[in-house]
Amino acid sequence: MAVMGRNLALNIESRGHAVSIYNRSREKTDEVLAESPKAKLVPTYTMKEFVDSLETPRRILLMVKAGEATDKTIAELQPLLDKGDILIDGGNTLFTDTVRRSEDLAKAGLNFIGTGVSGGEEGALRGPSIMPGGQKQAYELVAPILNEIAAKAPDGDACVTYIGPGGAGHYVKMVHNGIEYGDMQLIAESYAVLKHVVGLSNADLAKVYTEWNQGELDSYLIEITSKIFGKKDEKTGKELVDVILDRAAQKGTGKWTSQSALDLGVPLQLITESVFARVLSSLKDERVAASKVLPGPKTKPFDGDRKAFVESVRRALYLSKIVSYAQGFAQMRAASDEYKWNLDYGNIAKIWRGGCIIRARFLQDITDAYKHDAKLANLLLAPKFREIALNYQDALRDVVATAVKVGVPTPGFSSAIAYYDSYRAETLPANLIQAQRDFFGAHTFERVDEKGSFHADWG
Amino acid sequence: MAVMGRNLALNIESRGHAVSIYNRSREKTDEVLAESPKAKLVPTYTMKEFVDSLETPRRILLMVKAGEATDKTIAELQPLLDKGDILIDGGNTLFTDTVRRSEDLAKAGLNFIGTGVSGGEEGALRGPSIMPGGQKQAYELVAPILNEIAAKAPDGDACVTYIGPGGAGHYVKMVHNGIEYGDMQLIAESYAVLKHVVGLSNADLAKVYTEWNQGELDSYLIEITSKIFGKKDEKTGKELVDVILDRAAQKGTGKWTSQSALDLGVPLQLITESVFARVLSSLKDERVAASKVLPGPKTKPFDGDRKAFVESVRRALYLSKIVSYAQGFAQMRAASDEYKWNLDYGNIAKIWRGGCIIRARFLQDITDAYKHDAKLANLLLAPKFREIALNYQDALRDVVATAVKVGVPTPGFSSAIAYYDSYRAETLPANLIQAQRDFFGAHTFERVDEKGSFHADWG
Repeated sequence: MAVMGRNLALNIESRGHAVSIYNRSREKTDEVLAESPKAKLVPTYTMKEFVDSLETPRRILLMVKAGEATDKTIAELQPLLDKGDILIDGGNTLFTDTVRRSEDLAKAGLNFIGTGVSGGEEGALRGPSIMPGGQKQAYELVAPILNEIAAKAPDGDACVTYIGPGGAGHYVKMVHNGIEYGDMQLIAESYAVLKHVVGLSNADLAKVYTEWNQGELDSYLIEITSKIFGKKDEKTGKELVDVILDRAAQKGTGKWTSQSALDLGVPLQLITESVFARVLSSLKDERVAASKVLPGPKTKPFDGDRKAFVESVRRALYLSKIVSYAQGFAQMRAASDEYKWNLDYGNIAKIWRGGCIIRARFLQDITDAYKHDAKLANLLLAPKFREIALNYQDALRDVVATAVKVGVPTPGFSSAIAYYDSYRAETLPANLIQAQRDFFGAHTFERVDEKGSFHADWG
Repeated sequence: MAVMGRNLALNIESRGHAVSIYNRSREKTDEVLAESPKAKLVPTYTMKEFVDSLETPRRILLMVKAGEATDKTIAELQPLLDKGDILIDGGNTLFTDTVRRSEDLAKAGLNFIGTGVSGGEEGALRGPSIMPGGQKQAYELVAPILNEIAAKAPDGDACVTYIGPGGAGHYVKMVHNGIEYGDMQLIAESYAVLKHVVGLSNADLAKVYTEWNQGELDSYLIEITSKIFGKKDEKTGKELVDVILDRAAQKGTGKWTSQSALDLGVPLQLITESVFARVLSSLKDERVAASKVLPGPKTKPFDGDRKAFVESVRRALYLSKIVSYAQGFAQMRAASDEYKWNLDYGNIAKIWRGGCIIRARFLQDITDAYKHDAKLANLLLAPKFREIALNYQDALRDVVATAVKVGVPTPGFSSAIAYYDSYRAETLPANLIQAQRDFFGAHTFERVDEKGSFHADWG
């Protein structure tokens, strides 16, 4: 009954459903009741009382800390349950844990749904994006409620769909979070370039992001960014963004996304650079010390066309964002193949259009791209995104080259153009790497003119 | 008794030691004897015969496939051994496996040394770089032999030192391999830029790398690169490098390095980009298809000073290499803190000066840097490397900007300058990321003017 659990309970109750609630400590349960006196929540004070209060097949939503706490709670609950009951884990759980629990519980005849829930406190209460994975027939039994409590996309569709068996739901939520790291890093880089290259003030920035939010970049993260730059600090009267320390924290789902990509052998440079960028930002003391001794370039004040350059930054941001999603969706495709999940990428983009942190207008374009070609190898190949690449690549190149010359770090933008140019490269210098590997380790190489493995006597 | 095991046995025998050999299949053992009739190897045909043939405390080198095969072999050996015997795993083992085995065997009174061995077949026979980790007193019992068989650095020192307890040896070997990925990727990028931007032929490239190998880039990998560009294909008479398919393979140690860095929270962008670059290169069919539909920039022929630009590429390569090692050594420092290994970074660089794939003149500079300041937070801060950064950063910026403009992917170079500029940044735009996180998830932020955690009402 922490904030996410409480808000989901209130959300379900508000649709007219009877909801029993249970928390390890009686006080917490009573607190929830006291806070929401009008909600018809049914308090229970032992796990047995809780389980007995539910109609069968029971539908139990666990909102506990991911990891050991989840295992403990399941172990306590399991003896009280009947075959066919449905346990739903709505935490930010590592997908391999969900796979393990799903298999263990299936042996006891219990259904297990591991579901991603995105949208924060507010989303939980008013409508999150929901990514459930597990037994299809168990999903069908909870689908009506999930449809009611989920966010509604601009076209009115509920932001929930059956993702796939086993750990599919938590995997897709993990990639969602990885993509969120990428989006936030790219916006942060656009801010750094606009501030340090063009010299925009916070007031200018608030205006720029407000404008950007009217166009193809329309999204929740751009919207809140525009508001952030207009916010005053109540303590000092300064602009709040300037008072916030530049050490980015994280909770681990971005890291998991990168580690899984490495395991699957999927190039996921942009999200990974974003994870590392947060880590590097956290070394504040080291950075301050280094700033005093490591030299930067000699720079001149910006003398180009400011308005044109701001537009270039917008284009760089949008094309980089497309590259990031192309990588993330390629990762989901690899995971779907590896774990036999049969993911529907168009539907995944569809349920991200509302409720979740990365909700954005452009997710509709991704849905459309997969509707047009469900087997699309890479999002960059969709006609709509190819056209954006054609029109925006020069801007991205210009922004990266300019930032590199003046010493403003743009690891995400740089990584985006490197991926773009690598992915569209008929030949890469990897032939040299294979030659080296064969030279020092007899690891063999393939040839361009003949199938097979070959070894040269490099002597 | 595969090639690495055989060559290490022959290396030890060649120093006048009695060596018993054993292989699961009798035929392999006999084959080794037949191939090296002059070597005084003692063949054994059962594990018991093998163990009985050794003086106590026994010193047994395992050279079997990393993973399950190693566990199986240890399980078979263990009942035959006496307390105080020393098992040495010389495979490319994941360090967490070594930690586990070391703890299990210690309970039975057995010593376990997990050691990195680098240098390929040739190194195994004539002198590898050896990175042993495990019980110090067990190391002392094998140190004389390891000193004899190890490569000798230019100053005559043996390329072996005690690395630390538990999995320290295999960890350091893993980072060595990650660094090798980085070195190879950076050289490949220098090749791509020199070929596609400056238009150098293979003959030109052979000359350029030969020249570079005379200076501060002097290293085994640059040396073999210069030879590769001079090599003809025996089948077709063409230049061999052009016949080799540009799909880079890998065996997983680079991936482990990146995954460990993510776990430890160490920014390891360059090696990780190098791992992803190999993965991306392997998507040859996708790349060829994409090359036909994804547009590149309009480019003009290079009209700068060719000789000056070649020198810029050399500088870009060298500074990027320093950045890569700075990241790798920071990772070892974090691992040493986390696992209580008390690593000696100067000694590690010292034993990499000979025998191993990344052997290079500049490792002496790293040794010197740590001799001067054992607690150096980052290699970039050492006076020698700071001076190189001062003198070479413009070249690196120029090469990246040029490559990005003409569409030649340089993920390693780009990542190097992004890291350099991030690490020396007193402020990064991570304040915006913290503002966003607090806005949508109430994750709180720190302030620049006051200690503590703060939350704003962003409403």
